[in-house]
Amino acid sequence: MIKEFSFTLKTTENKARRGEVKTAHGTIQTPAFMPVGTAATVKAIKSCDVKNSGAEIILGNVYHLMLRPTADLIEELGGLHKFMNWSGPILTDSGGFQVMSLSKIRKTSDEGVEFSSHIDGSKHFLSPEKSIIIQHKLGSDITMIFDECVEFPATYEKAKKAMERSLSWAQRSKNAFCQRQGYGIFGIVQGSTFSDLREISAQKLIEMNFDGYAIGGLAVGEGQELMFGVLDYTSDFLPQNKPRYLMGVGKPSDIVGAVARGVDMFDCVIPTRSGRTGQAFTRNGVINIRNAKNRNDPKPLDEKCNCYACQNHSRAYLHHLVKSNEILGSMLLSEHNIFYYQDLMKEIRKRIEEKTFNEFAQNFCKSSSEYK
Amino acid sequence: MIKEFSFTLKTTENKARRGEVKTAHGTIQTPAFMPVGTAATVKAIKSCDVKNSGAEIILGNVYHLMLRPTADLIEELGGLHKFMNWSGPILTDSGGFQVMSLSKIRKTSDEGVEFSSHIDGSKHFLSPEKSIIIQHKLGSDITMIFDECVEFPATYEKAKKAMERSLSWAQRSKNAFCQRQGYGIFGIVQGSTFSDLREISAQKLIEMNFDGYAIGGLAVGEGQELMFGVLDYTSDFLPQNKPRYLMGVGKPSDIVGAVARGVDMFDCVIPTRSGRTGQAFTRNGVINIRNAKNRNDPKPLDEKCNCYACQNHSRAYLHHLVKSNEILGSMLLSEHNIFYYQDLMKEIRKRIEEKTFNEFAQNFCKSSSEYK
Repeated sequence: MIKEFSFTLKTTENKARRGEVKTAHGTIQTPAFMPVGTAATVKAIKSCDVKNSGAEIILGNVYHLMLRPTADLIEELGGLHKFMNWSGPILTDSGGFQVMSLSKIRKTSDEGVEFSSHIDGSKHFLSPEKSIIIQHKLGSDITMIFDECVEFPATYEKAKKAMERSLSWAQRSKNAFCQRQGYGIFGIVQGSTFSDLREISAQKLIEMNFDGYAIGGLAVGEGQELMFGVLDYTSDFLPQNKPRYLMGVGKPSDIVGAVARGVDMFDCVIPTRSGRTGQAFTRNGVINIRNAKNRNDPKPLDEKCNCYACQNHSRAYLHHLVKSNEILGSMLLSEHNIFYYQDLMKEIRKRIEEKTFNEFAQNFCKSSSEYK
Repeated sequence: MIKEFSFTLKTTENKARRGEVKTAHGTIQTPAFMPVGTAATVKAIKSCDVKNSGAEIILGNVYHLMLRPTADLIEELGGLHKFMNWSGPILTDSGGFQVMSLSKIRKTSDEGVEFSSHIDGSKHFLSPEKSIIIQHKLGSDITMIFDECVEFPATYEKAKKAMERSLSWAQRSKNAFCQRQGYGIFGIVQGSTFSDLREISAQKLIEMNFDGYAIGGLAVGEGQELMFGVLDYTSDFLPQNKPRYLMGVGKPSDIVGAVARGVDMFDCVIPTRSGRTGQAFTRNGVINIRNAKNRNDPKPLDEKCNCYACQNHSRAYLHHLVKSNEILGSMLLSEHNIFYYQDLMKEIRKRIEEKTFNEFAQNFCKSSSEYK
């Protein structure tokens, strides 16, 4: 029997929340980090190893998949889960952010966005209705509404206009969404760094009654302090009984700080992108594996990590692979980083259960060497 | 107790041989294919997956490893087995072929070869003694003598001179080799396509009493027919009680044809290099996964293959990954190809045991579509 799409808040510590999201393809323990599988692959990692990391949900992208291989093809082949061999839940981004950040030329109207593919320049059109249909074809457990994103910094007027258009698109997205047992649709709160806009956006979305609420328009260059400031008030505008998803975030300390401010779900390319550029996240800070001091270091990246790289290979070996531009270097570092992120989320969940999260968060941000 | 380095010929069918090589790090069933781990990695495959493919021995390269990360560093870190996390036997190529084919500038004298690194242009020197010391530092189970390779085609005079120098270098290599339980050194028969040179080379090497004999100077552009011609007579010059290794070969039909001519061991970059360029070997011939007909094909690459890609992914998905330049495409195709090669070797070994190898070989070469 497929269960209802649901969210259960199990316990809290101040604003930090320990919860559970149930979907058609399984249950997600929150706070959760979703590895990004942009083009139907978490880059340089087999899906079995993504699963082994402890990840319970991954993210796919409407923008990339509609261009290549197309939503129709994925539907013909049985949906995104089957296509990429991922049997757990999948959340898909609606394409709103990518048409803004990746496409070459675009023309936005109330109807939707006309844009040119970054791959071959071909013309495409995305609207709320079209994005929702694509996400339906992909078979997403969690569909995101199609929104209009603004750059940072944005003027108040521009942020207000985009937020209002996003509200109208949110309603059209919800109308186009096909309700099915275990499948949900999330609204996206916009409003840039303006608290009154964020409040209006949240209120109107709540009136539309979504299955969860994302916070969009952050992690676009505003910096951690400003982002935390927006989260401080925005999470208060959101209902307790629905999951909250901070889109595109972030570095480990961003995640810890956002959990402290009431966020339940995250996605970010940082662990895999860093892996491909020779950066490893560890319990003792960030390692740039290209650094000469790793040349003859027999230690693993992280003594406490259970990933394949840490169980079987030295920093010296990884240094050699990355310096030699060997694909295996990208593979091992990406997989390690995904393990690190999942271990971090496990620790966060445990700490909230034990009511020691705030202490953990304070120490984590103090000792974090990721900015060194 | 570490065993002697030994070769046992278990059974034969005409010239085809079914044997077993014992080394310090384990036993190799022959005919055997050795995946190439040039720079201490079988490209784009984790060592655990190389092992899962059924490979019992892999190959490393003196030339690449002496330049980066250096033999001294690998020795300091416990040897090549530990460095790259491969607990089975390792054979190392002496560098003779690579200084000829890869280095930028070189000056060959009776003493050795002075050359410039293809990586950074730095000057280096390789001699029989130096190559053997490097292979000792790496901890190779099977050390190859340092030889002088000539291009194809070579004049008789040039081939003769290089063969004679290689004989002198073979003796110096043997003298420099440190005998240890379970470790062996192979001579390399040279002489290009001239049968009298091949015969002299083989005879003189046999007098030096190596643990195995390689056939070098083939797979350098002479074509399959000419290569088979050289094997037809060269294998007759070699003793029955030692393993025979055809260096740098080859495509599946090359291997089947060479086994029929009495060869026991092979290495080649084809399975991994092809994997990185979108080519897959299957029981029904070669698939170019980029071909448009794979775009919506839900079948695996090879219905009978037990590799991760064939068990979990469709041709359509692999087509998408390769077209999208996703690293996972290179990973899955490389691993598949290594599995295919190991399955082929298993089939060859079984057929020789059952005395049905000749029939298999004839059908294989007829049905092989690799040249289509």
